[in-house]
Amino acid sequence: MDSVFIENGEVTVRTTRRPRRSPGSALIRLLCGGICNTDLELLQGYCAFHGIPGHEFVGEVVESDQANLIGKRVVGEINIPCNSCEWCRKGLERHCSGRTVLGIVNREGAFQEYFVLPDQNLHVVPAAIGTEDAVFTEPLAAAGEILEQVRIPKGAPVAVLGDGKLGLLIAKVLHVHGAEVHLHGRHRSKLKLAEASGIQTVWLGKKGKISAYDWVVEATGSSAGLDQAIEMVRPRGTIVMKSTLHDQPVIDTAKLIVDEITLVGSRCGPFEPALRLLEMGELRVEDMISERVPLREAPRAFELAASKGVLKVLLIPCA
Amino acid sequence: MDSVFIENGEVTVRTTRRPRRSPGSALIRLLCGGICNTDLELLQGYCAFHGIPGHEFVGEVVESDQANLIGKRVVGEINIPCNSCEWCRKGLERHCSGRTVLGIVNREGAFQEYFVLPDQNLHVVPAAIGTEDAVFTEPLAAAGEILEQVRIPKGAPVAVLGDGKLGLLIAKVLHVHGAEVHLHGRHRSKLKLAEASGIQTVWLGKKGKISAYDWVVEATGSSAGLDQAIEMVRPRGTIVMKSTLHDQPVIDTAKLIVDEITLVGSRCGPFEPALRLLEMGELRVEDMISERVPLREAPRAFELAASKGVLKVLLIPCA
Repeated sequence: MDSVFIENGEVTVRTTRRPRRSPGSALIRLLCGGICNTDLELLQGYCAFHGIPGHEFVGEVVESDQANLIGKRVVGEINIPCNSCEWCRKGLERHCSGRTVLGIVNREGAFQEYFVLPDQNLHVVPAAIGTEDAVFTEPLAAAGEILEQVRIPKGAPVAVLGDGKLGLLIAKVLHVHGAEVHLHGRHRSKLKLAEASGIQTVWLGKKGKISAYDWVVEATGSSAGLDQAIEMVRPRGTIVMKSTLHDQPVIDTAKLIVDEITLVGSRCGPFEPALRLLEMGELRVEDMISERVPLREAPRAFELAASKGVLKVLLIPCA
Repeated sequence: MDSVFIENGEVTVRTTRRPRRSPGSALIRLLCGGICNTDLELLQGYCAFHGIPGHEFVGEVVESDQANLIGKRVVGEINIPCNSCEWCRKGLERHCSGRTVLGIVNREGAFQEYFVLPDQNLHVVPAAIGTEDAVFTEPLAAAGEILEQVRIPKGAPVAVLGDGKLGLLIAKVLHVHGAEVHLHGRHRSKLKLAEASGIQTVWLGKKGKISAYDWVVEATGSSAGLDQAIEMVRPRGTIVMKSTLHDQPVIDTAKLIVDEITLVGSRCGPFEPALRLLEMGELRVEDMISERVPLREAPRAFELAASKGVLKVLLIPCA
């Protein structure tokens, strides 16, 4: 079978053996994978990653101890916990210190024809959600995590910085939540997508507003984004940080202190609310699919995903 | 009269004219000033400051439109607001965008025999508080600001990083609040002061604990402090930032995001709770006075204040 590898800053495809599941885990056949900016960061050296990437997927369960899972379309939480530490006991398996992370930390990812994930990580995809839409469950959950962490009042103006994949999803989620979202970006075509969902946009050819927002979400995927967020936030305001970068930015902490800004790091979120949003049709994601590429052409797919103007690139195993 | 100046990285004392008050402002005779780390940062270039520093003081009101202030011992809030913007209307004059800041931003400070401050900034010092203790009102208010911003449960372990003046005051305030404070520092003599108040201490000759605290207060006054705080905080924990530095540190934002850490910038606080703490005798500060130096020997006083092992240096005008 085909598997995608990241090694020494290069994407390759190799033939590997089908992995074997252990008790409590499912063997899953990949139906569709999504390339995330984190995958592009892994390629740049983030997490010193070597191996099979991939954490956005929809698959079909082929083998499992749970008979009711077999044959079902599933998506999966990407953190694989120890199930015994205090975080796991609190239901915060995403922060388990002993965790592995699918396709990111110490675990083979989903960009292969078959892969393994614990049953407990799986969520069955409701019939009303198309397979390609369901690939967005994981990043949509990450977008929704913001609302699990901070209370943004309905009607409050929120600046979302970055019109990439995650920025657009965040803008959509916060818009559905009822915030007055202003999406700031540099790509007119991407901003237009947001406008089609009724979201206000600001083209950042010109300079952003200074001290203008109580809420700023930084999702530019660039180390300059946080500086810009710090400029745009008002005294006592909150910046939600979403860009996991290999680079470490220099930060004007004096401004954060003098203006008493709060910075909140935000990562993975719960899948169920994301699946509900997709199931209810409250939020469109199919407009964000730029390309569908066969799994064995993954090197080209990664190149595409890193190109200007491109949003989600899907990897489709050959039939 | 004598006035202290910071210019081109040097402290000098010059003879100046007694300033004149305008309506609504008081003319104040300095009784005692305190040198703060921010003053040492100004000397390093923070805020591109040139002029008369000084924002920790106790003075006696000599002239004012308010007859009941005259002859009273006062301390003063350091932010001088416009009184008309939305922040001022909200009672958050400390964040007024048009504000000047005593001895820091666009306003002569208190390190001169006589100086001027609006009546509205002044708080009369209760008789039970000695003049030298009252000099600590401003930094004590800044320490107390933490409890205005975040809810630290009673009994919760809190790491305070930095055994300098502000770190010690923060440790004392949080200890009185009922938190289980662990003061981390590099100076055995300073840690002993905290121990005398019943505070647990950790000498940082050895490495600090990794991911050990839900609450970390960074008050090292060093650009390396934030990194250390990020190492010590647990997933989903909170770091309160207190060190306003001229330097801008490099930050591992990926760790903040993956562990969903919250950073809270914290600056000036309300004076009344600080004065109450001093009045009730719940918190000792006199043990933090290292030296009393005549105002006209300010250059020596600043040198002392920057020396290892020294805590608060007071400036006393000559009689």
